[in-house]
Amino acid sequence: MAGFTVVPTDAECGPEDGLARLFALGRQAVERAGADVTAVGIGCGGPLDSAAGVLIAPLHLPGWTNIPIVDMASTEFGLRAVLDNDATAAAAGEHRFGAGRGTSNMVYLTVSTGVGGGVILDGRVFRGRTGNGGELGHVTVDWRGRPCKGCGRRGCLEAYASGTSIAERAREAGLDVETASDVAAAARSGDVVATRVWDETCEALASGVTSLANVFEPERVVIGGGVSREGEQLLGPVRQRVLAEVIGPVARSLEIVSAELGDTVGVVGAAAVAYERITRPNATDSVM
Amino acid sequence: MAGFTVVPTDAECGPEDGLARLFALGRQAVERAGADVTAVGIGCGGPLDSAAGVLIAPLHLPGWTNIPIVDMASTEFGLRAVLDNDATAAAAGEHRFGAGRGTSNMVYLTVSTGVGGGVILDGRVFRGRTGNGGELGHVTVDWRGRPCKGCGRRGCLEAYASGTSIAERAREAGLDVETASDVAAAARSGDVVATRVWDETCEALASGVTSLANVFEPERVVIGGGVSREGEQLLGPVRQRVLAEVIGPVARSLEIVSAELGDTVGVVGAAAVAYERITRPNATDSVM
Repeated sequence: MAGFTVVPTDAECGPEDGLARLFALGRQAVERAGADVTAVGIGCGGPLDSAAGVLIAPLHLPGWTNIPIVDMASTEFGLRAVLDNDATAAAAGEHRFGAGRGTSNMVYLTVSTGVGGGVILDGRVFRGRTGNGGELGHVTVDWRGRPCKGCGRRGCLEAYASGTSIAERAREAGLDVETASDVAAAARSGDVVATRVWDETCEALASGVTSLANVFEPERVVIGGGVSREGEQLLGPVRQRVLAEVIGPVARSLEIVSAELGDTVGVVGAAAVAYERITRPNATDSVM
Repeated sequence: MAGFTVVPTDAECGPEDGLARLFALGRQAVERAGADVTAVGIGCGGPLDSAAGVLIAPLHLPGWTNIPIVDMASTEFGLRAVLDNDATAAAAGEHRFGAGRGTSNMVYLTVSTGVGGGVILDGRVFRGRTGNGGELGHVTVDWRGRPCKGCGRRGCLEAYASGTSIAERAREAGLDVETASDVAAAARSGDVVATRVWDETCEALASGVTSLANVFEPERVVIGGGVSREGEQLLGPVRQRVLAEVIGPVARSLEIVSAELGDTVGVVGAAAVAYERITRPNATDSVM
């Protein structure tokens, strides 16, 4: 990659302003890359309509309603453009360029502010019927459990394993922490309460991963997102528990590994879905 | 269908004896059907290897280990034969001939002694990487909950929604019942304990269905198996809760309906997978 630049979204200034800044960034990237650019890939949080190329009402971009971003980007760059859910794109990125290389069936989970993910089945990106499937953070781990801020029901994986929830549960238990990373650090230094919160997090995550593995029978589960930076402190207990608990035939050759693309997964993933949908045009129109 | 005959498996008499009886039944069916028969479809509980056509060690057929049933049936009938997990086959049957007709993306759940299921994605039967995916009864509903007899971990959907669990929880709560159907009847006649057990069952089932709907974004969830004979007493509360709780875009056009094939789903399903795999040969070798 020639370079990697970040600008703040400043979503509250509205889509016109935000898109102008994003497109300026895109023009820089196209200039740097030269003649090799054949498509524009865009990843964004949902809800969105990936087939129509429209942002419907992304939760983290208040006011960005019904934005035909694919048409706008096509016009701006004179190139074909595609839009996908950012977690779907990240899954495609890790599959093509990261920790999922070489697999046909892979589950990607991002454990971050929320919990999201994507699934590769038989080498193809799974999107659900209209592109809104694959909401892996919203599988149940405890149906009478904590309210889930993301979807409003109770006991989703996200309600326990997200960075937000980790820090929140630690504060509820009396710890003076700001982030999930603070909780991880306190657990490493032997704090009993932090250890309990962290262990509970690993158990919930393992339970969600086990559900997904029993359903999809993947070769590999790739775990990324900010919370996964704690490395084996998170992955070790999760791997041990999942491999002990998934049904026999699924366990046989299941790997649970860290994502490889780090902060670049959004951009690399957007490129991966653009590649997939433009070189395999059937995949563009199809539901998966 | 020309007819429908049932013989006991008598699994304890061993595979030689059992297969002889099944094959005799098959010969009767072929005779009745005449020249139209082009393939033999076999559905069985797992673990099995559907690609190789071998029963590995089906849980409910103790001693039936490594039986090359597809080769044996091919020889016996002089026809091509295919083997699939019985819940996968049932999903294919409901999709082609039953309550899933006309859908491209469908989840089938059988709520019976255990809880199993199958998934149709983009019109094709999903089998997971080696045919052991789609274990829909083993998604979590409460990770610290009841032990699951089917898989050994805690809090699977099966550990709450199966007929076995319904009757067991009712007995634990002091009711004098034998079956899930007894519990349903007691709840209908106003028994408070039975009502509580039944409500909990519906909540657990709704939670599992919500997980699966969030993951797969199906058009329709088809619920079959013995417990589903209670009809709207089961489906009504499940439907209401799922539609209130799945993420917005998934809820838009999700239907939750009763299976249509009843006791014939095993046989019709086996025919459906034979049809699919023999008329769409790529599907035979592929993982989904």
